[in-house]
Order: sequence, then structure tokens, then C-alpha cells
Amino acid sequence: MKLDKNLKILIVGLGLIGGSYAAALSADGYRVSAIDTDPAAIEFALTKQWIERGAAKPEPDLLQEADLVIFALYPHVIVNWIAEQQANMKSGAVLTDVTGVKSCIVYDVQAILRKDLEFIAAHPMAGKEVYGVRNSDPAIFRDANYIVVPTDANTFAAIELCKSLGDTLGFARISSLPPRAHDEMIGFVSQLTHMIAMCLMTCSKSEHLVDYTGDSFRDLTRIARINENMWSELFLLNKDALLRQMEKFSAEFSDLYEILKNGDEQALKEKMRQSTARRALFNIATKEDKQE
Amino acid sequence: MKLDKNLKILIVGLGLIGGSYAAALSADGYRVSAIDTDPAAIEFALTKQWIERGAAKPEPDLLQEADLVIFALYPHVIVNWIAEQQANMKSGAVLTDVTGVKSCIVYDVQAILRKDLEFIAAHPMAGKEVYGVRNSDPAIFRDANYIVVPTDANTFAAIELCKSLGDTLGFARISSLPPRAHDEMIGFVSQLTHMIAMCLMTCSKSEHLVDYTGDSFRDLTRIARINENMWSELFLLNKDALLRQMEKFSAEFSDLYEILKNGDEQALKEKMRQSTARRALFNIATKEDKQE
Repeated sequence: MKLDKNLKILIVGLGLIGGSYAAALSADGYRVSAIDTDPAAIEFALTKQWIERGAAKPEPDLLQEADLVIFALYPHVIVNWIAEQQANMKSGAVLTDVTGVKSCIVYDVQAILRKDLEFIAAHPMAGKEVYGVRNSDPAIFRDANYIVVPTDANTFAAIELCKSLGDTLGFARISSLPPRAHDEMIGFVSQLTHMIAMCLMTCSKSEHLVDYTGDSFRDLTRIARINENMWSELFLLNKDALLRQMEKFSAEFSDLYEILKNGDEQALKEKMRQSTARRALFNIATKEDKQE
Repeated sequence: MKLDKNLKILIVGLGLIGGSYAAALSADGYRVSAIDTDPAAIEFALTKQWIERGAAKPEPDLLQEADLVIFALYPHVIVNWIAEQQANMKSGAVLTDVTGVKSCIVYDVQAILRKDLEFIAAHPMAGKEVYGVRNSDPAIFRDANYIVVPTDANTFAAIELCKSLGDTLGFARISSLPPRAHDEMIGFVSQLTHMIAMCLMTCSKSEHLVDYTGDSFRDLTRIARINENMWSELFLLNKDALLRQMEKFSAEFSDLYEILKNGDEQALKEKMRQSTARRALFNIATKEDKQE
């Protein structure tokens, strides 16, 4: 099952990501509609011709005609939204999402879902330090990763449809992970890094640093501009996995501290060689290689 | 006193930074020569016409004619090099460097220096994850910071000459800090960030992460490819300052861990707001604003 231009797509939540989905899909000839509680967001997307139709509340006819429903909402509202609105959905419709944490959502949704609907979770690993539909831009999907997060309950057809959505949106790499493994990995590569970036900004009163910083500090703190409503929710929903990643990082950081304190040049160099080798490996197949 | 095209400039050490200085200065019409122990590095710079003359050892005539001598060597060799070669230097010559740590060098050099020479320290905050003269590129100075690091012994004329060098090289911001304050600041914005980037790569066997990482992990680990000879030396030479910065970071990281562990949403949001406000302030006057 592939994404097909006859399918009607409904996006629920027109923020940065929902808007970027709408922009990418409409530019590619897909028929997109949207629901968002903010009439100005709907108006903006209509003016941009990113959507054909839109509404500030869950209009039954928008729901009834949608073959694919994409939820780009805050995690805590998705389950209730589906519980309340699924009666109006088209039989056979596929539902997906864009949420950054999975275990806490996907099982709850699948447990309450009508048997003739299917929910397949996905995580587009793309974003910006700014938000809202006015900042939407499908270019954020280029060079980025799209992860399909199926459970044992999902069908092959829905998994393929979801991968096909990632392809259509223009993601560079499409992969698949089960929910628990996804949340562990995200706790490391995304949440821990945001925690570190925040920590660099809050551990020092740094108003006067701008004259002295090189690219390294700017790189490590770019993501320190953080939407506190969204990220506090994501951190708390993935608390156990993130705490484990923080513990692992702290233990290694303490080792490095001791090595430096002891002036152990050989051990320090060995850590640097290990770091360099792993990062070089990591660069393979990413955009950085093209730059270097 | 300003940099003047009649001045003869000698660069000692033709690595990534020394080579980039030579390229920038020669392109701007300055007369540049160089000394490097590697004849291939000299040959490369001659072929590129970055230098007029070069030698693989300290030829007395190159030293005798130089008005400005720029040391782009590993920190541990600078003091001895000057002690051994200063007898051949031109009276009134100004000496400067590019070293990333200062307290451990500048006082030693000034203590042994002939009274008719002057050493003024400088730190060009620019680099790459690759090294050697073949990777030299004056573009790395654009958008970057250049810090003059004078002591009480320096003259106004030499400080001005050194700032003028930074201007000529194309640095975006030129500032000044005394050695101790410089080293504290560098311990935070540069060395701590390199330690964190290394730690992210060494705390987890991360060979398979490439499929899942977003820009955040790539940004935080770009500098994890690290020249272990140079950076271990820089870390150990600035050990006390770096240990203090690591302690400050660890204490704040532990606070964030406790906040998350307690599920304290309000405290977490407050940290995020603080981080966002500081980082936004920090962006002012940097290239990121132009991008956003």
C-alpha cells in the first residue's frame, strides 16, 4: 500500500510540523485538509494553498472523507481526541502521528481504537527552534530521519503506507523501531542532547560570552532555545529512559573528570581517539561528508 | 601602529591555522615567509603562493628580516623555540601566537624575552575538525572571534598591531581579555564543550545511531572528532580552569536530573525559559540571526 493521490489526507494540528506536512504534500499534488483550534492557522494555510479545506473544530465531514489522518498535536491530547472523534472516521482509515515519544501513546490509542481503523506511529526527526505554522517549511525534512514505530498490532500494509508518507515528505532516511527501543534511542540522541544544551546555558550567567564563543559553543547550544510546553511534556513522558541516559552520560563525564584531574595524558588521548573514530563512522552517509 | 604592507611577516608553524594566516595575508598583498619542520608543508605553501620564502629549519636570515613573527606551534614548544632563536631576531620585532591557552605561555615568554622584542598573545577562535596546511582556508575566520590577550607588560602599540592583524585576517569580532580571564572563559565555551561532545560519543557504543539521529545530536558531536595530540595538551595546560567548569556543569546537570526525577514540571519549564532567554540574547549579533 502506497500513498496515492486519490487518498484524502487530513492533518489535525497545524503547528510547525503539521504545517510543513501540509506544505510538502500539497506541493506534491496531494489533497490535504486540516483541523486546528486556531482559526488564524487555518486561514494562513488556506491562503498559502497548503490545504483545500480547513476547520477550527472537528467537522464530521472532514473526518468522514479522510483516508489518512495525521496527528500533529501535543502528546497528551491525542488519545482523548481520537476517543472522542473516531465515531466519525471513515472505515478503513489509517491514522498516524508525529510525536517524539511513543510508548506512552501508541498502546493507549491502539487499545481504544475501532477495529476497522488502524493507528501506525511515526516520528519525523525534524524541527526548528521556532514554532507555529508561519515557520513551517518542508525543507526541514531534507537530510532528516523518519522513523516508523510499529507495534505487534500493526499490519504490513499500514507500515508500508507510513514509510511511503515519509518518502513523499522528502526524508533522507526511513527506518523502523519498536516503541520501547525508539524511546530509549530518543532519550539518548535527542532528549539528552537538549538537556545538555539547556545545562550549558543555565550553569553560567553567560550574557557576555557572545564576544568570545567559537562555533563549538554555538553548535552545542543551538537547541537551547526550547519550547518549554512541548519539551517538558516530552521529557516527563519519557522520564525513565531519559534518566537512564543522563546517568550513563554522568558516569562517563565523571570518568573524564578523573582522567583530567590525574593528568593522565594517555587515557585522555585514548578517549579522544575513540571519540574521533566513532564520530567519523557516524558521519558516513550524512550531509557532513558532502561539506568536508 | 597598524599592520603595514612594508612589514615582513614570518609564520612559524604551517599547520591548519598557520597556513590559513599565510593564505589570508598573502591574498591581501602582505609579504609572508614561513618556517616549518615539514618540507612538504613549505613546498605546498610556496606552490600556492601563500609564502614568498620558506625553510624547514630556523634560517637566521628569515628571522633577521621579520618585523612580525607569528607562532602557530603546539604550546609546549613555543617557549623553547623563542629562547633558542631570539638572538637572531630583528630589534623591535613584535611576536604573537595563536595558542588556545595563555597563562601557561605568555608569562614564560615575556620573562625570557630580549628587552627590544615584544610578545603579544592572541587567540584566533577558529578551526576545523581536520588539520594540516592542505586544509587551510581563510574562510574559517569569517564570523569568528579573535581575542587579543595582553598582560601588564604589553605596550599600546603592540596591542593595536595585534588587533589590526585580526582585522586584516577577516575576523568578525575582535576583543581583549587578560590571560587568566581568557583561560577561564575558554575552559567554559571551548574546552568544556569539546569534553561534552567527546563524552556523548564515548558513553555509548553508537555505531548504529546514524539512522536515527536528528540535527541536535550531529550538532552536539561535530567537534567530537578531535586531534588528540593538540587537545590533550590544551586540556592539561588549562587543567584547573577546565576542572572548575566541569564541576559547574555537573552540579547543574545533577539539578536537572533531580527536577526530572521528581517530575517537577514547573521547575523544568523555568529552566527551559531561562535557557531560551539566554540563548536568544546570545544569538544577537551572530550569524544565526541572519539565517533565521
